[in-house]
Amino acid sequence: IKMVVAYIRPDKLSDVKQGLAEAGAPSLTVTNVSGRGSQPAKKGQWRGEEYTVDLHQKVKIECVVADIPAQDVVDAIAESARTGEKGDGKVFVLPVESARQIRTGKSGPEAV
Amino acid sequence: IKMVVAYIRPDKLSDVKQGLAEAGAPSLTVTNVSGRGSQPAKKGQWRGEEYTVDLHQKVKIECVVADIPAQDVVDAIAESARTGEKGDGKVFVLPVESARQIRTGKSGPEAV
Amino acid sequence: IKMVVAYIRPDKLSDVKQGLAEAGAPSLTVTNVSGRGSQPAKKGQWRGEEYTVDLHQKVKIECVVADIPAQDVVDAIAESARTGEKGDGKVFVLPVESARQIRTGKSGPEAV
Ligand SMILES: Nc1ncnc2c1ncn2[C@@H]1O[C@H](COP(=O)(O)OP(=O)(O)OP(=O)(O)O)[C@@H](O)[C@H]1O
Ligand SMILES: Nc1ncnc2c1ncn2[C@@H]1O[C@H](COP(=O)(O)OP(=O)(O)OP(=O)(O)O)[C@@H](O)[C@H]1O
Ligand SMILES: Nc1ncnc2c1ncn2[C@@H]1O[C@H](COP(=O)(O)OP(=O)(O)OP(=O)(O)O)[C@@H](O)[C@H]1O
Ligand SMILES: [Mg+2]
Ligand SMILES: [Mg+2]
Ligand SMILES: [Mg+2]
Repeated sequence: IKMVVAYIRPDKLSDVKQGLAEAGAPSLTVTNVSGRGSQPAKKGQWRGEEYTVDLHQKVKIECVVADIPAQDVVDAIAESARTGEKGDGKVFVLPVESARQIRTGKSGPEAV
Repeated sequence: IKMVVAYIRPDKLSDVKQGLAEAGAPSLTVTNVSGRGSQPAKKGQWRGEEYTVDLHQKVKIECVVADIPAQDVVDAIAESARTGEKGDGKVFVLPVESARQIRTGKSGPEAV
Repeated sequence: IKMVVAYIRPDKLSDVKQGLAEAGAPSLTVTNVSGRGSQPAKKGQWRGEEYTVDLHQKVKIECVVADIPAQDVVDAIAESARTGEKGDGKVFVLPVESARQIRTGKSGPEAV
């Protein structure tokens, strides 16, 4: 069992949800986050005041999978989230030791 | 050390906090999230427009434990979050390699 | 590859971002969360009604690193987030099995 964690552009959420469904991994959890990657902070001006934009709005996606290879899920997210511009995001895979579906009490891969 | 991650119904948060305290795992972090499980998206109508509800408000709970078995924490969450209806949520256990308590500087299981 | 997860005081976010940048780990994701540690819930009164404050606003930081030791990142966060008062937070390290940078398609440590 693996947890695929992705940070993507908010306006790519809809495409990613569709990409995941087509890859056979429709279940997911979405969180509003902000973050920065490797670009240095950007300085701007507002009414004569200098300010720094260094955290950008992103969406975090968590998708736990058991039946399909985590790399297929990574591919599906990366393809559907890509624009080719800086800020497209990252996808990470974390190990998961156990799973439980609350309604049924099922454990293991079939609980995912 | 393990991190127990649960996605539950928002209106079950209070019961789950109590269940965790009774299980000897009072520490937790709560995040507002939205998500979908294995049910297909639901279509509705609003003022003649069709819309699709496919993400439901949920609460994510993270509970890192060292002294008590992670499965006891999974049991406590699953029991207190259960209604028996679709949408009750899931609980996953992830491995944690190290812990640090910031105030005391303590590391390892006693930092959890 | 490791994911360093920290729960800190919201008003320490700016110091922690600077601490991370100085430690050579500028990339991070920030989430607004609430939580409780090991202190019992605090009871208060408001207009004659008793209430319990048991969840405090915190900020969660996720910082995935590959080139620098995760413990250096833990040190950087813990030093910059510390006030010495209860509620300073915790830092955990989780294993990460793979990484992908969406824009470039790069995988592995150089994708982080
Ligand atoms: N190492 C990391 N740890 C935690 N979060 C990260 C990390 N790298 C990126 N993120 C998250 O992903 C978001 C998008 O990152 P971004 O795509 O800008 O990465 P990048 O390495 O700068 O790539 P690019 O050069 O294509 O912009 C960030 O705002 C942050 O939320
Ligand atoms: N595999 C998963 N990966 C990530 N998040 C998940 C996953 N499965 C469920 N979730 C989260 O848990 C929430 C509740 O899921 P839900 O209980 O509907 O799962 P289910 O498998 O459809 O079970 P049920 O048939 O009882 O509804 C989802 O809205 C989502 O936030
Ligand atoms: N074991 C844990 N699992 C999940 N989240 C935790 C855990 N411990 C702490 N947290 C998160 O960190 C925040 C701050 O915790 P806190 O610093 O109060 O921990 P503590 O053990 O009570 O230490 P202190 O005695 O210094 O207050 C909590 O509000 C919660 O969000
Ligand atoms: Mg970038
Ligand atoms: Mg469901
Ligand atoms: Mg405390």
